Amino acid sequence: MIKITFLPDRKNIKVGKGTPVLEALERVGISIDTPCGGKGICGKCKILITKGINKITSIEEKLISEEEIRKGFRLACQTKVFEDSIIKIPLKIRLDFNKLFTSKLKGDIHNIKKSFSLESDLKKVFLDLEKPSLDDQRSDWERIKDRLSLMKIGNISNLKVPIEILKKIPNLIRKADFRVTVTILNNEVIDIESGNTTKSSYGIAFDIGTTTVVGYLVDLRTGEELSAVAKTNPQIIHGDDVISRIEFVQKQKDGLKKLQEEIVNTLNEIVRETTQRAGINKNNIYETVVVGNTCMHHLFLGLNPSNIAPSPYIPVIKESLSLKAKDIPELALDSIADIFTLPNISAFVGADIVGGVLSTSMWMEEKIVLFVDLGTNGEVVLGSKKKLWACSTAAGPAFEGARISSGMRAVEGAIDKVKITNKSVTWRIINNVKVKGLCGSGLIDLIAEMLKIGLINKSGKLINRENCQSEIGEEIKKRIIREIEGNKFILVKSDKAEGGEPIYLTQRDIREVQLAKAAIYAGIKILLKEVGIYPEDIQEILLAGAFGNFINKESARRIGLIPHLPLRRIRFIGNAAGKGAEIALLSKKMREVSQEMSKKVKYIELSSRPDFQEEFIKAMSF
Amino acid sequence: MIKITFLPDRKNIKVGKGTPVLEALERVGISIDTPCGGKGICGKCKILITKGINKITSIEEKLISEEEIRKGFRLACQTKVFEDSIIKIPLKIRLDFNKLFTSKLKGDIHNIKKSFSLESDLKKVFLDLEKPSLDDQRSDWERIKDRLSLMKIGNISNLKVPIEILKKIPNLIRKADFRVTVTILNNEVIDIESGNTTKSSYGIAFDIGTTTVVGYLVDLRTGEELSAVAKTNPQIIHGDDVISRIEFVQKQKDGLKKLQEEIVNTLNEIVRETTQRAGINKNNIYETVVVGNTCMHHLFLGLNPSNIAPSPYIPVIKESLSLKAKDIPELALDSIADIFTLPNISAFVGADIVGGVLSTSMWMEEKIVLFVDLGTNGEVVLGSKKKLWACSTAAGPAFEGARISSGMRAVEGAIDKVKITNKSVTWRIINNVKVKGLCGSGLIDLIAEMLKIGLINKSGKLINRENCQSEIGEEIKKRIIREIEGNKFILVKSDKAEGGEPIYLTQRDIREVQLAKAAIYAGIKILLKEVGIYPEDIQEILLAGAFGNFINKESARRIGLIPHLPLRRIRFIGNAAGKGAEIALLSKKMREVSQEMSKKVKYIELSSRPDFQEEFIKAMSF
Repeated sequence: MIKITFLPDRKNIKVGKGTPVLEALERVGISIDTPCGGKGICGKCKILITKGINKITSIEEKLISEEEIRKGFRLACQTKVFEDSIIKIPLKIRLDFNKLFTSKLKGDIHNIKKSFSLESDLKKVFLDLEKPSLDDQRSDWERIKDRLSLMKIGNISNLKVPIEILKKIPNLIRKADFRVTVTILNNEVIDIESGNTTKSSYGIAFDIGTTTVVGYLVDLRTGEELSAVAKTNPQIIHGDDVISRIEFVQKQKDGLKKLQEEIVNTLNEIVRETTQRAGINKNNIYETVVVGNTCMHHLFLGLNPSNIAPSPYIPVIKESLSLKAKDIPELALDSIADIFTLPNISAFVGADIVGGVLSTSMWMEEKIVLFVDLGTNGEVVLGSKKKLWACSTAAGPAFEGARISSGMRAVEGAIDKVKITNKSVTWRIINNVKVKGLCGSGLIDLIAEMLKIGLINKSGKLINRENCQSEIGEEIKKRIIREIEGNKFILVKSDKAEGGEPIYLTQRDIREVQLAKAAIYAGIKILLKEVGIYPEDIQEILLAGAFGNFINKESARRIGLIPHLPLRRIRFIGNAAGKGAEIALLSKKMREVSQEMSKKVKYIELSSRPDFQEEFIKAMSF
Repeated sequence: MIKITFLPDRKNIKVGKGTPVLEALERVGISIDTPCGGKGICGKCKILITKGINKITSIEEKLISEEEIRKGFRLACQTKVFEDSIIKIPLKIRLDFNKLFTSKLKGDIHNIKKSFSLESDLKKVFLDLEKPSLDDQRSDWERIKDRLSLMKIGNISNLKVPIEILKKIPNLIRKADFRVTVTILNNEVIDIESGNTTKSSYGIAFDIGTTTVVGYLVDLRTGEELSAVAKTNPQIIHGDDVISRIEFVQKQKDGLKKLQEEIVNTLNEIVRETTQRAGINKNNIYETVVVGNTCMHHLFLGLNPSNIAPSPYIPVIKESLSLKAKDIPELALDSIADIFTLPNISAFVGADIVGGVLSTSMWMEEKIVLFVDLGTNGEVVLGSKKKLWACSTAAGPAFEGARISSGMRAVEGAIDKVKITNKSVTWRIINNVKVKGLCGSGLIDLIAEMLKIGLINKSGKLINRENCQSEIGEEIKKRIIREIEGNKFILVKSDKAEGGEPIYLTQRDIREVQLAKAAIYAGIKILLKEVGIYPEDIQEILLAGAFGNFINKESARRIGLIPHLPLRRIRFIGNAAGKGAEIALLSKKMREVSQEMSKKVKYIELSSRPDFQEEFIKAMSF
């Protein structure tokens, strides 16, 4: 066994010789960003070995500069450890963005509350029972049931009691001197507690993203959100898109089991943290609603997602499911707590999109609304209360900061806003710390601004310094650097950036954005055709996604991500999926709505549309 | 580790030094009779140590004759093994009565079939599904559900599918080339299989007795009984009545868990043997009905029976329960197979009595019927379709052969019928082998016959040889032996009995029978009083119990176990509880009947009746 110490955390772990660093990191609970899925393509997961020798692989030689190699930089995905080592994990590649992400959510949640009424089916009742005697030999369960009947609680003659509760009853009611609180959900007793606990009644909503998992702990009586916690989906170690997860299931022994374990462990951490923060007992969590894309939905449930990936793209189940916590192995909630998954629409339009649409009012409005969720897949929903159409495009993870030279997620240190004039460049950094990279909204801004002053032309070319328009000052011009693979634009110089590396945009980065925005725009175009309307018929565009605080609507429109409509018709709605999950948690009626709505959506399979490719190519230019 | 070999089985086991013989026997699967629960009181569990030295305990000195000790006899409950040993387990104390018991049941079962119609809710449907394509992207589950809907199977819009089935679906339907059989029960899919298996649909009924556990495997389509297996309840090692089991739960760490495990292991063996004999796949067992006394019912379900034993005698639950195999830890049935327990009436009138009454027609008849179940507890039910009354008496295990000098269960080698005239004694032996002892029906016969010719007087005294009536010949007289503790009657001389010990009846044995029959008769009297009728108002007496092939009605009446009514009104109905379980298995309606009927029964708590003691004393004399 050898010892690895990770800095700056000072976390130690003993591992066998030859253990991959990625595995060791996973085991000590440090999440890092591996945009290419640890395949040695992107060169993003640079770590610094300060003690311990490591041979350089040919992949590392290609992706790390000579000077960095000399300093001790290696790629986490390539490195195996053969002796005691101390390894520094740069903040830049870390995914510890919990604090930022959740504080941001708080604001949104309060707005949702207004749009529907609480109508949980859950009832907690305090009972002060008669004690048994030779004249009253009712069984323990009859004693409880008769009292509930007297109090006219639920449909008593069909009231069910699971064996788990029956096992607890005899000792519990006697210790409690026959004063107990009974919890009833869907005509079944799901909890019995000593004394009066009628005020403790909680639920948790989970949004399981390919990259980020968020949990919202809610008081079911008041609808108040008590705490929210976001975690990186630990499956990211196997690759950053759903296809890589499905490959893992297919290729690895027990791959499905492993991925389910990983997601369940994360949910358990979220349960622990949210309940600790709120100071409540997790056994009082009675209801859970889960959303996620179809693949995450399947992995959470332990359903094999293998048939999602190849044509004709078939999920195991689309409809919503109601189950018990015990149906999910190792899920650390009371075994008979209720778990509800929102329905999926298709293999690539999942329960997260159903939640997202649910959180808007588009499913109940006359006007035509366009809903765009910008994730690794770009999902598009178009329509009104009469009918909805949906499609999914493989936009790629550019807007999440992956596959972009200086890209990063919308966390502390990311540039989320850029302004360029003829003479100057300014930007905003999340939490105003030293700059670490460029997140999705900053990337969109940057390209939009460069388009505006002609640094990028219609075809997407980053022009040469000498071809700039005459108004452009030297300050701007000198940021354009000519390189063999194409030009590069220096946004932040190396001396101003954390880690001493400049923040820049390459020609290749622009191409990535073009591919992403063209995919989404082409999807929108196909839906418009299917519905038989023109872009100007859209009365509202809703942009959803984990973009930090905002996305600049004008920039999004400028780069052609969405149709050119008046800005007042465009709205950024943040993490809509999570909001939808929370709404479904608080309202049984909204769960029914989600089921009906999901059935009404007509899914358009873009891969079977011969006109998609044409639209896609048309949409490539700016 | 030391080695023990058990004869005549030649079963070997390696155990640690000091292992109790009872434990070793349990581990090799040999069941022996320990009437006093291994407490060193009855001296019944005599074994012969043919190799290996064993010190004699003071208990053994008291209970085993000097000559036997010299030969190597010891008590299994007292012996621990400290060196390699060979131990002979006499047939007399063994409980291997499987073969006899089950062949006997076969006959009964066929009569039940006539009395109700099959109306199982279970449906198996073969589906030849369309294959998915880009034009038909329904999920796997939708594909199945839509087809069921087309075929108008069940209430499809509410059809549920458990996660266990969903997990199987994607791989199974593709391997089966989309030709599958779906099994639906209670509007839930409980099985999916490759190809057409619509003909394989089975259920199993369990009767869990304190002493004996029986399982009946049934074809749910035809109602045919395919096989039946009886096993000794392995809990018998902890004592032969329910009170000793409850004490075990209270005193032993994990006692409840252990007793549940023991019973579940036995059920698993029965499942294995019944399915092997019938040549069917146990995964095609979809429904199970369980009966047993209230304590066995609780132990099977893992419910703490502790409050059954002390006044005021409170069970955890009385009503019937429907659960899944997975709710019973380690039960080796498909995890989502349906388990149904018949309802209990009180702490000492259990689901076995409900099953027993269900198997008769007394709950739907105008005439007044008396139902008596002769077990360790004697349960009595009286009434008609208008109303039923029930009570339970602590009759003791005399009729099961326990606490009787030469007593044994109704298995091979037991005398089950006795005839005594003034000059001669004759008897019948089960399976006509060498005699081993006296079972319940033989004991009742013996006492009845001795009463008839005056060898026992009204007060129950076994008279002295010289006080016999003049007609009694020498052959009979010389069988009466005077001993310090009272007289003894030699039924079979030592040279004719297996093991060389005579079969006899002592004064003490007679007292045991008097206690048992008085308890039952007093219970009957209290019920008659409660109902406000006289014995002659009873139009039919049904005697139930595991008495082997029969009980002599006249003898039962002669000893005063039941009221003196014309013999044509008395009927022996065998193991009624098991029949009732089988009926409930085959008919959903009969399950409902059992629930309603159990609620209609008025339970009379004898311990709170001041007149019980009086009736009991009155009933002691013959």
